[in-house]
Amino acid sequence: MSISGIHLSRQTHRSLYLQVADQLRAQIEEGKLAPETRLPASRVLAKTLGVNRITIVNAYAELEAEGLVATRVGSGTYVTAPKKSSDFGDPAGQPWRSRLSLQRQWSPSQMMAEMMRLARQPGVISFAAGTPASEFIPVNEFRRALNEVLRRDGAAALQYEEAAGYLPLRETIAAELRRRNIEVDGDHLLITSGCQQAVDLVLRLLAPGEDATVIVEEPCYLGLLDLLNSRQITPVGLPVDEHGLQIDHLEQAILRHRPCLICVSPSFQNPTGFTMPLERRQALLDIAARYGVPILEDTTYDELYYEQEPLPTLKSLDTADIVFQAGGYSKSLIPGIRIGYLAAPAALQERLAATKQTTDILTSPLNQRALHAYLESGCFSQHLKFVRNAYKARRDAMLEAVRRYFPAEASWRRPEGGIYLWVEMPPAGPTATELYLTAINYNVAFSIGSVFSASGSFEYALRLNFAGHPPEEIEEGMRRLGKAWKELLARPAEILRLHPRAAVQIL
Amino acid sequence: MSISGIHLSRQTHRSLYLQVADQLRAQIEEGKLAPETRLPASRVLAKTLGVNRITIVNAYAELEAEGLVATRVGSGTYVTAPKKSSDFGDPAGQPWRSRLSLQRQWSPSQMMAEMMRLARQPGVISFAAGTPASEFIPVNEFRRALNEVLRRDGAAALQYEEAAGYLPLRETIAAELRRRNIEVDGDHLLITSGCQQAVDLVLRLLAPGEDATVIVEEPCYLGLLDLLNSRQITPVGLPVDEHGLQIDHLEQAILRHRPCLICVSPSFQNPTGFTMPLERRQALLDIAARYGVPILEDTTYDELYYEQEPLPTLKSLDTADIVFQAGGYSKSLIPGIRIGYLAAPAALQERLAATKQTTDILTSPLNQRALHAYLESGCFSQHLKFVRNAYKARRDAMLEAVRRYFPAEASWRRPEGGIYLWVEMPPAGPTATELYLTAINYNVAFSIGSVFSASGSFEYALRLNFAGHPPEEIEEGMRRLGKAWKELLARPAEILRLHPRAAVQIL
Repeated sequence: MSISGIHLSRQTHRSLYLQVADQLRAQIEEGKLAPETRLPASRVLAKTLGVNRITIVNAYAELEAEGLVATRVGSGTYVTAPKKSSDFGDPAGQPWRSRLSLQRQWSPSQMMAEMMRLARQPGVISFAAGTPASEFIPVNEFRRALNEVLRRDGAAALQYEEAAGYLPLRETIAAELRRRNIEVDGDHLLITSGCQQAVDLVLRLLAPGEDATVIVEEPCYLGLLDLLNSRQITPVGLPVDEHGLQIDHLEQAILRHRPCLICVSPSFQNPTGFTMPLERRQALLDIAARYGVPILEDTTYDELYYEQEPLPTLKSLDTADIVFQAGGYSKSLIPGIRIGYLAAPAALQERLAATKQTTDILTSPLNQRALHAYLESGCFSQHLKFVRNAYKARRDAMLEAVRRYFPAEASWRRPEGGIYLWVEMPPAGPTATELYLTAINYNVAFSIGSVFSASGSFEYALRLNFAGHPPEEIEEGMRRLGKAWKELLARPAEILRLHPRAAVQIL
Repeated sequence: MSISGIHLSRQTHRSLYLQVADQLRAQIEEGKLAPETRLPASRVLAKTLGVNRITIVNAYAELEAEGLVATRVGSGTYVTAPKKSSDFGDPAGQPWRSRLSLQRQWSPSQMMAEMMRLARQPGVISFAAGTPASEFIPVNEFRRALNEVLRRDGAAALQYEEAAGYLPLRETIAAELRRRNIEVDGDHLLITSGCQQAVDLVLRLLAPGEDATVIVEEPCYLGLLDLLNSRQITPVGLPVDEHGLQIDHLEQAILRHRPCLICVSPSFQNPTGFTMPLERRQALLDIAARYGVPILEDTTYDELYYEQEPLPTLKSLDTADIVFQAGGYSKSLIPGIRIGYLAAPAALQERLAATKQTTDILTSPLNQRALHAYLESGCFSQHLKFVRNAYKARRDAMLEAVRRYFPAEASWRRPEGGIYLWVEMPPAGPTATELYLTAINYNVAFSIGSVFSASGSFEYALRLNFAGHPPEEIEEGMRRLGKAWKELLARPAEILRLHPRAAVQIL
């Protein structure tokens, strides 16, 4: 069907998507759009109205949250019928379809992906992504390693092998971990398809069924929230301060929610960049050990330090054998190699390898061997020195620019490592979502804080990746962001704060 | 602790592992091994007794199945205590540990892995693995493709990109699928980390919680059983005959078990090599559509045909949009590239891509681009022609040898594609497990049928991979297998069949 009678105004401060939702809602309530009416595909309606598809997707999501429409997998979005058959055996009720339609259509990372697509227009300076700088990826050295491996190993580098990973690579990584006082040998290390898979495998092992809860940092890594959401595991957020995860209420949370895992990034946390001091690491371990709750520690950013070497990992301090340490090479070396690793409590290693095998059999043996050859060549420590210097300069440029262009009421802390600056804007002003939608017109992008939150909080926070652009582009991007901010501030304040919740809720 | 008083005899027909289990059982029952006693690690006891570790693992598994011992993750195998505390908050009761110890310690694929390790001794001719021939992997052509891509794309080939996959590769594969009458374009195809991940993602979407059931072929692909087991999904097996999955009882099974999915390999099924004719494909689709049960079709072996081109896939015949077609390049080209694909019901594609992102972010963009360059170079069809000829000759050598060396009562059918021959040995004789344990002494190995069965059936069946060895090695390996069979037959029959069930249960 086609929808008629929708009139959008760009003169009002009501967001376009809410204007669409308002008018569709009215038509549904007036009976102009009867139950079981199929709404046009979002691409189609977007074209008709001359707006971006995300506007329509958001409008439909708004109506879906209100229960007025429902997405049916395989056919589209329908005006909700008063009652629906769900009898098994009745094709109309197809139980798998109706179950799917109950799931949220857009996860935070899909919204993120949509934002990133917007940010990918030519001319946009984007601080939104979680990627390291492309120009520092050692393409030639890695190509040399690939060729060396294929000449040396031939078909063996392209055949199936052990699910747990290529043993020489595991031994090289284990030796590096031992230098950081983690007692592990290659046999007890699992190679994973990136650090994300390490997290997935641990959850798979510890939270196989429903009704599981996991303690996460608030805010935390978006990919973790997304994974928990897709596995129907409930995240219980504990706040992060400048010393990382706060543990004051940890015992209470454990007793109340009986989590199967605590997920934490002690060094240069994503998205805040904060680092947990040694005493708090120790205290966290003590509590976790007392209650027998395992900890999954993400060390992705540990090698990207700009002041001093990272503190001991939880795993290196763990005397109770309850820590899983996950790490990888996506941020410090090459994202596209897709190699991470997991050091688990000793007796779980074999089971994790078996679980890994069920998910993707094994991680590309070619990539594993090439990474091994690269690491053995000794180039890695030089590479790290180089990127630490470069990223430090970029961080400093970002700090300088945030001081120059951001409002005095904004607050942030200098990150001592990692690739992100976390800025909290004054809550009396526009939300990060509003700023994003304005900033994109100024050809600059960032990540809004609320996608990193289990509760949708941090609607006034921004995550800025400083690693991906040279200092002069950082300066220019931040200048644009400052202008966008000023434009927003110039609008009447009462209208600005009309629907911050609704906006955050769906973005 | 150390165990004393175990005496093994190689003069008896009682398996070594059962001898170990018998004597440990006696010591437990007599109280010599008190509750809470920790048994020695399997490696240690194996060394002490001078046997293979698998013997001890099997012995412990036997005792665990009898409830006499329990494996505790993180510490070992203990004699079962009369009662165990499991209070939350009590470190001794650590709930995540006790939950893990309830799971089966050895999955079929772990047993398979252990068998494969045994088969990897020098001199062993192994028909056990699921691997294609290493000597046909086009190492140089693929190396050329890798270099071309890195020269052309530089860091872009090693950076993050879209989770759904590298679009040009998706378009190339989609074009190939359209030649097989599957209406799909690149946008609607998902690149996965091997075909196994495609299966995992579909299960993740359709069976997120517990209590799910899936209809599988009996026997079926081991990796599927393993995946279901790890996800705590119940497989409901329907028998396979020479025309593939039998559908006589499919409706009944659907009504009774309410499966969320039917998993099927219509062409050159693993492990049987059987193929489903067109009429049965049609009938299967009709029933599935009537009850709204989606089908996951594995087309891994479709390109490896030796008589005539494979029949239309279920997806190409699907008018109800209920078929997921999974395929890949591991058997037909390069296992180590770890690339598969999934063509799903249209509206699910986006959700599957989001789910994929939660598991491993994306499949190696370098490998995706190199595969794309290789496919575009036109080498693939030549490669396929070559391996089809070579594998056909190997299949024929295997058929010839099985006629020559196997008992007249054994039964098999000529596989028209794929890489496996399925042989059912006379049930009056030794089990496949017994044959395996004897054959390994003759330096020949194969897969026992029961690992491919949801119910542990097919204890007299063998799966023989004919693709991995040249005809003369096939002849020699089968000669050895024939000798092993004769040695077993020469033993007194009543002892031979003493414990076939127990053996199959744990192997």
